[in-house]
Amino acid sequence: MRKMQRGRGRLVPSVQEQWAVSWLPGSWKMLTVAVCVTLLGYLQAQELQGHVSIILLGATGDLAKKYLWQGLFQLYLDEAGKGHSFSFHGAALTAPKQGQELMTKALESLSCPQDVTPSRCVELKGQFLRLSQYRQLKTAEDYQTLSKDIEAQVQQEGLREAGRIFYFSVPPFAYADIARNINSSCRPGPGAWLRVVLEKPFGHDHLSAQQLATELGSFFQEEEMYRVDHYLGKQVVAQILPFRDQNRQVLDGLWNRHHVERVEVIMKETVDAEGRASFYEEYGVIRDTLQNHLTEILTLVAMELPPNVSSSEAVLRHKLQAFQALRGLQKGSAVLGQYQTYSGQVRRELQKPDSFHSLTPTFAAVLVHVDNLRWEGVPFILMSGKALDERVGYVRVLFKNRAFCVQSERHWASERCQCLPRQIIFHIGHGELGHPAILVSRNLFRPSLPTQTWREVQDRPGLRLFGRPLSDYYAYSPVGEQDAYSILLSHIFHRRKESFITTENLLASWVFWTPLLDSLAREAPRLYPAGAESGHLLDFEFSGGQLFFSQQHPEQLVPGPGSAPRPSDFQVLRATYRESPLVSAWPEELISKLAEDIEATAVQAVRRFGKFHLALSGGSSPIALFQQLATGHFGFPWAHTHLWLADERCVPLSDPESNFQGLQAHLLQHVRVPYYNIHPMPVHLHQRLCAEEDQGAQTYAREISALVTNSSFDLVLLGMGTDGHTASLFPQSPAGLDGEQLVVLTESPLRPHQRMSLSLPLINRAKKVAVLVMGRRKREIAMLVSRVGHEPKKWPISGVLPRSGQLVWYMDFEAFLG
Amino acid sequence: MRKMQRGRGRLVPSVQEQWAVSWLPGSWKMLTVAVCVTLLGYLQAQELQGHVSIILLGATGDLAKKYLWQGLFQLYLDEAGKGHSFSFHGAALTAPKQGQELMTKALESLSCPQDVTPSRCVELKGQFLRLSQYRQLKTAEDYQTLSKDIEAQVQQEGLREAGRIFYFSVPPFAYADIARNINSSCRPGPGAWLRVVLEKPFGHDHLSAQQLATELGSFFQEEEMYRVDHYLGKQVVAQILPFRDQNRQVLDGLWNRHHVERVEVIMKETVDAEGRASFYEEYGVIRDTLQNHLTEILTLVAMELPPNVSSSEAVLRHKLQAFQALRGLQKGSAVLGQYQTYSGQVRRELQKPDSFHSLTPTFAAVLVHVDNLRWEGVPFILMSGKALDERVGYVRVLFKNRAFCVQSERHWASERCQCLPRQIIFHIGHGELGHPAILVSRNLFRPSLPTQTWREVQDRPGLRLFGRPLSDYYAYSPVGEQDAYSILLSHIFHRRKESFITTENLLASWVFWTPLLDSLAREAPRLYPAGAESGHLLDFEFSGGQLFFSQQHPEQLVPGPGSAPRPSDFQVLRATYRESPLVSAWPEELISKLAEDIEATAVQAVRRFGKFHLALSGGSSPIALFQQLATGHFGFPWAHTHLWLADERCVPLSDPESNFQGLQAHLLQHVRVPYYNIHPMPVHLHQRLCAEEDQGAQTYAREISALVTNSSFDLVLLGMGTDGHTASLFPQSPAGLDGEQLVVLTESPLRPHQRMSLSLPLINRAKKVAVLVMGRRKREIAMLVSRVGHEPKKWPISGVLPRSGQLVWYMDFEAFLG
Repeated sequence: MRKMQRGRGRLVPSVQEQWAVSWLPGSWKMLTVAVCVTLLGYLQAQELQGHVSIILLGATGDLAKKYLWQGLFQLYLDEAGKGHSFSFHGAALTAPKQGQELMTKALESLSCPQDVTPSRCVELKGQFLRLSQYRQLKTAEDYQTLSKDIEAQVQQEGLREAGRIFYFSVPPFAYADIARNINSSCRPGPGAWLRVVLEKPFGHDHLSAQQLATELGSFFQEEEMYRVDHYLGKQVVAQILPFRDQNRQVLDGLWNRHHVERVEVIMKETVDAEGRASFYEEYGVIRDTLQNHLTEILTLVAMELPPNVSSSEAVLRHKLQAFQALRGLQKGSAVLGQYQTYSGQVRRELQKPDSFHSLTPTFAAVLVHVDNLRWEGVPFILMSGKALDERVGYVRVLFKNRAFCVQSERHWASERCQCLPRQIIFHIGHGELGHPAILVSRNLFRPSLPTQTWREVQDRPGLRLFGRPLSDYYAYSPVGEQDAYSILLSHIFHRRKESFITTENLLASWVFWTPLLDSLAREAPRLYPAGAESGHLLDFEFSGGQLFFSQQHPEQLVPGPGSAPRPSDFQVLRATYRESPLVSAWPEELISKLAEDIEATAVQAVRRFGKFHLALSGGSSPIALFQQLATGHFGFPWAHTHLWLADERCVPLSDPESNFQGLQAHLLQHVRVPYYNIHPMPVHLHQRLCAEEDQGAQTYAREISALVTNSSFDLVLLGMGTDGHTASLFPQSPAGLDGEQLVVLTESPLRPHQRMSLSLPLINRAKKVAVLVMGRRKREIAMLVSRVGHEPKKWPISGVLPRSGQLVWYMDFEAFLG
Repeated sequence: MRKMQRGRGRLVPSVQEQWAVSWLPGSWKMLTVAVCVTLLGYLQAQELQGHVSIILLGATGDLAKKYLWQGLFQLYLDEAGKGHSFSFHGAALTAPKQGQELMTKALESLSCPQDVTPSRCVELKGQFLRLSQYRQLKTAEDYQTLSKDIEAQVQQEGLREAGRIFYFSVPPFAYADIARNINSSCRPGPGAWLRVVLEKPFGHDHLSAQQLATELGSFFQEEEMYRVDHYLGKQVVAQILPFRDQNRQVLDGLWNRHHVERVEVIMKETVDAEGRASFYEEYGVIRDTLQNHLTEILTLVAMELPPNVSSSEAVLRHKLQAFQALRGLQKGSAVLGQYQTYSGQVRRELQKPDSFHSLTPTFAAVLVHVDNLRWEGVPFILMSGKALDERVGYVRVLFKNRAFCVQSERHWASERCQCLPRQIIFHIGHGELGHPAILVSRNLFRPSLPTQTWREVQDRPGLRLFGRPLSDYYAYSPVGEQDAYSILLSHIFHRRKESFITTENLLASWVFWTPLLDSLAREAPRLYPAGAESGHLLDFEFSGGQLFFSQQHPEQLVPGPGSAPRPSDFQVLRATYRESPLVSAWPEELISKLAEDIEATAVQAVRRFGKFHLALSGGSSPIALFQQLATGHFGFPWAHTHLWLADERCVPLSDPESNFQGLQAHLLQHVRVPYYNIHPMPVHLHQRLCAEEDQGAQTYAREISALVTNSSFDLVLLGMGTDGHTASLFPQSPAGLDGEQLVVLTESPLRPHQRMSLSLPLINRAKKVAVLVMGRRKREIAMLVSRVGHEPKKWPISGVLPRSGQLVWYMDFEAFLG
């Protein structure tokens, strides 16, 4: 019985061994087989690496029945011969007898790999069944008992315990209890590992995800947790990094903004949410697929490739860096849809009244930008939806067409013609192709793939994919299709953490998605009929960081040529404030309007004088403005714009606290202002900060006098503090409120106390002054200042009144209306 | 005989009038007809606007026979009834009798418009023939005689002379004589106008064009000259501005860099230059078609649209502004080809020896950029060639695809799908369509065209144009096809100068093209077989302002993945020079290698010290390096790199001469170096340049001491002048060659004389110094310096030897091997 025969690479008991127990009575048989298998393990102790117990929580649930038992069976087939012994514990709340019945039923449908003969399959399933048992896990005691049983079994069989895997195939509300029980009562002894496998959803937004993570973190070490995103187990997705690695030499020059036109990460479903309304209504498409599956794929495509892609640690670190490079999403980054019958389904399934209309999106497309040197400007389009015209998942990397083909199109040869589309498609599954595949345009390069596990796809005449016949691609698909869960279970077993979501990555993803989810929470999605009937209703376009439906109004059948929101779209209130014009709107509209006005002023100034002198304030409100100017205003005459600071903190320019730093990060890095048109305040001279004797304020004043005609800026942008300060002119502090000085050193009540500021007289020389006031916090001072006269010593902002220029107030509704 | 009948809108003598003279003998007939016609004019004196004489010089030449007589006939048909009387004088050097015979033969083939009956046509031709006579024009006397004859005729007939048109259909060498004769002996009297019509070539380069223009300018006023580019008379070309005007509202938002992906201006011919070798060998394809036809079309597409497109003056002014916005061409802006049998044809036709191989291109593609806010970054591709696979001319404006279509492609509707190509094509003629047309993608907009002269084209199933079936376009073609010369003659007659090339525009075009022609003069064009056999041999791509053949080496049949050369491709020679390492290669490889080495040094420095201090030289060689670093090195740690200048010219930083300006344009605009890590030399302080008392050099030295540990740069990049200077350290000038000073003011033998430079002792403190030497001009000094010892006073470069750092020489093969 020590002899083993290798069955297609897997170590299994010989026919004789199995035969040897066949004459024993039923219950003895079970025991004997266990003993035999255990004995076998014992006798091979030198070879064995110990015993592994796998506890599947929710063993009779849908996921377990559909994928997990099959995955565990596959794991057993793959690993049993390699030195470990196994036991499998299906667990649930169900009572033992009923649970065992349900589980046995689930296990009956296990299938073997294609290359196993039916009789061999019966044998293998038999072995697996004998190692698997059902167990009710409800109370702390149940867990204690489980732990003792495992220990007893291991000890009894003279084995070393290698580790325990707990697979949480249960609803998230059950996580905490189970985790507590495992931690307190069911950890393996010293020297053995614990791995807990968690299934999404991992929270509902950043806060809830963090709470859940903190809670789990109190029971488990980070290294013990394996958060599953089953997309990472899909063969094509799992191949993205190896593909990038194996084709590194060619891709090195191509995988960047100079060559990539766009990246599409797409998951289309034909099914709808019927029967799952209670889950779906709470989550919606972004939480269901974009925040996890599509985002994970995005990071695999966008991340810097580590030198060694098989280093989990390096992969995870690079992934996290990719998250950090993602540009923040705004309301305008997404379009939402909902299939027409969805609300009705929700009403039926959740017993809602007829008047109920859901705002939950079942379709979403999101424009993502990765703000680093590699990807700057390349649109990443993430799109997913239910009740669409086809089921398909893919990542498409479309390369720029920078070629001209001299011959007429009839003579183009697909392998050599650079004018035909050049693309790489990671075809995750389904679609017209019908199976997973990696496609590379023949005019791009012949990819290298592991020949043992990937093979070329046969041509299928008439089949067109992404605009070209299949024959235009080098197309490879897996030799044997493997289920994602089988792959992931194997990775868990082998501690390959790169296929799982670490807490850091999870939270980074929620940090990325939560602001968008919040801002869209009350948006009505566009309704669409199911399937092909949607026509071009959901088609969308993007420009200047915004994404919008091509058909602006569903009823408008002829699409307009352009895209940008038109002034008439703004919900802008025009009024007066302190006898000057006031523009008021919701924050995004307000910033858009201000950016538009600044551009108009700039264009006019450049047309008239050849240059535009703009003085900008620091703080958080202008950041949104800077971003808007950087991404949405291509016509801005940056080359002829001089940028000045309205005020500065006395810190080095590179200090994150410096106003200049905000200007640099959010504006200067994105537009082309000539170096010598940028005028930071000289707060840092001779290695010291704002020393009177270094005459920084005087130097700045001289620079202004020398370059700005009459020291009259074309536009000064100011803010207003809750104490009525503006620029760095503070109440009760006389510096800069009047007198001859153009630039002054001042004292702020807040740290850093020392400041440099344009003086009120200089500000009031400007041709135009815009004051931007945003947020509920400013409500009180806005109210107060609306009533006071010219009292700059109490409220410096009240002294702003350009002598011969124009003053305009920009206040959002929260500041203005409270 | 005063009665006239209107024949299809044209005023012609009645049948009776013609009959009335038929009984007279031959010579009398002629005279009588003339008298009759003149009398007719006289009797209608109130209606008549005067007499116009048109003198066609070169009346028996090819152009005259093929187009000009026909054009004049058409002019007569169009205008004779509208108040002018005409006489047509064919002129040449040929003796009168022979000339008259040749001319009569040429006139026999005149044809009438399609809507004229054959018998009517015979009548009309008869009238025209009677107004036309041949005249030998050779000597000054001939011109005097002509003038007197015209005056006599006009006087005799009691007419007012309206004006004279001289059409120069003669080789350019004859221009000056003719012009002189016209000016001195054949101008009409006061009150009548003179128009001279000139045919290209208008010079061979900027200098010759200027000489010719100056010469012509001494004889004629600018307003008297009409330089013909017959492309401007082609119906579709002539419609570009009216089309832009009539569709102004829609195009306003589309006609810019945000929406336009590229513009192609294409003229393909199937014929070759056989029989025209003597002309072609001197001119080549760029002078033959790009400098004129394609450039004219380019300006029509790119120019700002004047408010009133029928104002010649405004059109010409805007055209000139478009020229001024063109970015200068460089050698890398073009690719050249020559059909394989061309050199043989030249040898035969010009009796060249068998060893002769022409360098004249018969194919050229040029990448043009229009550097203004509207077009920045949009590639304009100009391409023309002989012996290609088809004859076609078109302008194609391709719009960006910024859309995603949610449905699978089967469901896309061409009118509403923003994912299908969106383009406007001005189809000048020929090609598969076979006639002039304007095409607008249906998913773009329905264009407005004058319905009287343009009609919709019928669909032709199976016909695909620019990747889409004809049915995907709104397609319009002219109701009646008109020859370009007829149109232009009419414009000349009506003084519509916008269809002609003014002197200013002509010279602007030569200013644009001449540097490219000069730099390509000794380039060997790529040979190609004629017609479709060229395959993808001439296909080209562009990136970073450069244009290159897709197939880098014709013999290489499998195209590489892209453009960037791979390290394995480098043909890099490693040797030593002045006992230091030398890297030598062809220019592109050398720059790639240097960029790679700099990146490696930077990455290492940042890893070890957290920052990288790089000092850069000015000049032209580093520009290619900057571009390479900007476009090919995504991993470069720019955020942690400090950039210093090795030397600077004493000009403002914004001066095009400034080294900093080159750095900014070619590097800083493209990468993200924080503002405060950029260290331009302070050559401009207190509104003056390099004044000793402003202590700029000392300030820079202090900055270096403060920021660079031990004042030891991580890398200094230097060049070497033909006099052995490096940085701005010049021979025979002691400043900076030794001593304590880190930064010095120096004197250059070349303007601008004043310089600021790192000193030799400071350079030699660097951890690494790279000297980049490129081009044949450096061969001599490279040879010399290889032999001299340490003699910095004679050859400052010989003093470069880092005390404890490394020196590496980077020389291209031309500098090193000569």
